[in-house]
Amino acid sequence: MVERIGISLDGKLLRRFDKLIGAKGYANRSEAVRDLIREKLVEEEWAAPKGEAVATVLLVYEHDTLDLARKMASLEHEAYHCVVTTTHVHMDHDNCLEIVILRGPAREIKRLGERLVSLRGVKHGRFVPGTTGRTI
Amino acid sequence: MVERIGISLDGKLLRRFDKLIGAKGYANRSEAVRDLIREKLVEEEWAAPKGEAVATVLLVYEHDTLDLARKMASLEHEAYHCVVTTTHVHMDHDNCLEIVILRGPAREIKRLGERLVSLRGVKHGRFVPGTTGRTI
Amino acid sequence: MVERIGISLDGKLLRRFDKLIGAKGYANRSEAVRDLIREKLVEEEWAAPKGEAVATVLLVYEHDTLDLARKMASLEHEAYHCVVTTTHVHMDHDNCLEIVILRGPAREIKRLGERLVSLRGVKHGRFVPGTTGRTI
Amino acid sequence: MVERIGISLDGKLLRRFDKLIGAKGYANRSEAVRDLIREKLVEEEWAAPKGEAVATVLLVYEHDTLDLARKMASLEHEAYHCVVTTTHVHMDHDNCLEIVILRGPAREIKRLGERLVSLRGVKHGRFVPGTTGRTI
Repeated sequence: MVERIGISLDGKLLRRFDKLIGAKGYANRSEAVRDLIREKLVEEEWAAPKGEAVATVLLVYEHDTLDLARKMASLEHEAYHCVVTTTHVHMDHDNCLEIVILRGPAREIKRLGERLVSLRGVKHGRFVPGTTGRTI
Repeated sequence: MVERIGISLDGKLLRRFDKLIGAKGYANRSEAVRDLIREKLVEEEWAAPKGEAVATVLLVYEHDTLDLARKMASLEHEAYHCVVTTTHVHMDHDNCLEIVILRGPAREIKRLGERLVSLRGVKHGRFVPGTTGRTI
Repeated sequence: MVERIGISLDGKLLRRFDKLIGAKGYANRSEAVRDLIREKLVEEEWAAPKGEAVATVLLVYEHDTLDLARKMASLEHEAYHCVVTTTHVHMDHDNCLEIVILRGPAREIKRLGERLVSLRGVKHGRFVPGTTGRTI
Repeated sequence: MVERIGISLDGKLLRRFDKLIGAKGYANRSEAVRDLIREKLVEEEWAAPKGEAVATVLLVYEHDTLDLARKMASLEHEAYHCVVTTTHVHMDHDNCLEIVILRGPAREIKRLGERLVSLRGVKHGRFVPGTTGRTI
């Protein structure tokens, strides 16, 4: 059953959103918001039935934020058995992209991923579960 | 200036969304939807000023979908100069996670990323630009 | 106790070897050969005390050698639990470098590594154990 | 034309070498030494005709050797344009394996690779050029 809700948004943000959904070919805002919500839920409700799962954490930060690198290494070391590999890529003169592949109990790697993403100094962080999209 | 819009959503989806935003500590749906939209815009409007950018593509698929592997390899080969590395991880007996790091003209790697993500047979695909989050 | 052995070598190869060891600053051929043997032994006699070890396999091959890619994937799939990640890098228009990170029982990953390296079509293959160099 | 040279070796090392070449199925020591020399020459004489080449550096070190990590990062940063990716793998509680993929002018990446391998604190380091084995 379809329900109707009201959402308050900044006008400038709304204009940019309308432009984006037009470009994407959505018929209306409801469809576009529904897809955003569904995508979020698939990632959030993600859990591995057999308990072991794979996920990827993407982190953008300035490489001379020395303290951040140390905190990352420390978090990863605590959860040593869950970190498959950590790969660095230089994005440009200032910024690094760090790609952390995690494997382990779904709950544990989600917690680790969220702590990495929310570290102070991370400019853009994403926790992307290796979902097969079957949960929704 | 704040504007109010109406959104139609399936009741079941709305229930799950309400549960998620409660767990996340949002004060109301507007705040949560605003964050989803902003996150999407940051990724979509992403563009590198100097023209060169870095992005990551995450693809989950069944590894015996032979034809898919061939199509991926073929797409990546066409854009050979933009593919930094391609890393495979076995998720479980059936599923693979492929992590493709791209570097090149923002427009070109976005197009390549979107083509990879939308390949038939990809169960879950994400194009994550290496944004520093400064565009919004 | 030092022993003296006789070695027969092609004159052309010997000339190139003499040139190399000169450039490297070796005092004589015995020292240089001793280092080659020691390095080989460290890698060959490598074994992990606790049974689990890490190793890297480096493979150069032409990427359109389709049958080789299939054989690699098949070997890696058989030993799925020992393959951490497989990373591809395009070397040039024709050649690929594949970097396979292995973790598992030392004996098992050595066998897998040697089978990968000796696959028909591999132009240059190296099995490099993650030795800490303590065995010799 | 075959030439005969004399080599002085420690008796204990010789015994281990004899055992290894027996296991490998070599007919005699000359064949085994010849293969070691050829393999070394292929790697050393390696050079890319078009000037650009790919190589891999493998480094084993203790991860709490903080100063070493800083020196590595600094060397890699200096040659930023030649470092494709840097991947860390935890070998065991104490040791890390770092896999650095290099791409750039053959001479430059060889120099960088050799500096990384010879850093104080590296327990086992290998510079493996992405040779196609055609030079010898």
